[in-house]
Amino acid sequence: MAIAPTTSPPCFDESFKAQLRDLLLWRRDVRRFKRDALPAGALERLIESACLAPSVGLSQPWRFIIVDDTALRGRILAEFERCNADALKSYSGEVAARYAKLKLAGLVEAPAHLAVFADRSTIVGRGLGRRTMPEMADYSVVAAVVTMWLAARAESIGMGWVSILDPERVAELLGVPADWRFIGYFCLGFPDDDSQVPELERAGWERRLDCHQHILRR
Amino acid sequence: MAIAPTTSPPCFDESFKAQLRDLLLWRRDVRRFKRDALPAGALERLIESACLAPSVGLSQPWRFIIVDDTALRGRILAEFERCNADALKSYSGEVAARYAKLKLAGLVEAPAHLAVFADRSTIVGRGLGRRTMPEMADYSVVAAVVTMWLAARAESIGMGWVSILDPERVAELLGVPADWRFIGYFCLGFPDDDSQVPELERAGWERRLDCHQHILRR
Repeated sequence: MAIAPTTSPPCFDESFKAQLRDLLLWRRDVRRFKRDALPAGALERLIESACLAPSVGLSQPWRFIIVDDTALRGRILAEFERCNADALKSYSGEVAARYAKLKLAGLVEAPAHLAVFADRSTIVGRGLGRRTMPEMADYSVVAAVVTMWLAARAESIGMGWVSILDPERVAELLGVPADWRFIGYFCLGFPDDDSQVPELERAGWERRLDCHQHILRR
Repeated sequence: MAIAPTTSPPCFDESFKAQLRDLLLWRRDVRRFKRDALPAGALERLIESACLAPSVGLSQPWRFIIVDDTALRGRILAEFERCNADALKSYSGEVAARYAKLKLAGLVEAPAHLAVFADRSTIVGRGLGRRTMPEMADYSVVAAVVTMWLAARAESIGMGWVSILDPERVAELLGVPADWRFIGYFCLGFPDDDSQVPELERAGWERRLDCHQHILRR
């Protein structure tokens, strides 16, 4: 990727920092999309932003698959429905009833589908930093996903992470190399609504906790 | 965490988007720090930002350990040095010589040390979204780390991810619950310099690739 050099490091002012906080506050895991297509080139531009993420040993193990084929999308949706029905069976009573009502993916409405994998076997980076922690390759790909998510929200594009899938089945359906590890399947599009409150909190499933209870000191 | 409700969704203009791109471009994995302390409360504020990250099923499985004890920091440093010496042995010839010259952590200079874990056993979120992919808990924690990294860079604070460590040994040294999974050990402080180019690229170890070669279509 050609990155134009700029002359001096940027200095981020209070206004930018306040807007960045707004970006973090209003970024949602989106499951309700309008059907409008993304602007031409938007997805590729977001992937370029994703690749500015840190990666272990500069290994850049991210692999992106843009899924456009309707039949293939249908097979992914069927897999989601199968896994979600299994998940429902693990709950009972009132919780099961509440789970059944949740909308957990926007696979039908979202105009763009993206599958993301980590190539743990890449020789790029010569293995630096992933000897004791081979999972660092996966984490680098997650870093790219999160970077993309924020860049998307800045353009009013929503992203939703679908993890209610069987990684092996998805890899098989998409025909990826055997050593690629499935990280996530993403729906992208313009969201139906905006909120500062996570959808699962609005639906009464779970609420955000005070993060200070998760800080320890040694 | 108390999050003040704002009235309407923000709209991000071109100026913000350009600055966000600058933020992504100038975020580095920092290994060279000034010794100046972080401002009081800065680390806790960055952790608050981290907790705005998405998490699977709203499970918020992130666990942060601020490591201040000098003796404990010394034991972490010794572990890093042991693992790094092992890593060096895996290279030979000219590559080994180049590896030996790399500075891969700022553990001695960085004023703040933070260890981050994922609690896969948390009941928060009732297991939603992590039945077929239990690793989603780890990925949620990485999402928090990346969010924190960007918030830090906006405040001119650098972060460096130390992965050349034995996860089990670190968990043992820090005395965390047995089911917490080590995600990373982070150095934070004001960086010695700023660059758009990753340190490993400047050192001639690896270079950034054109990300379009990692996009496939189906």
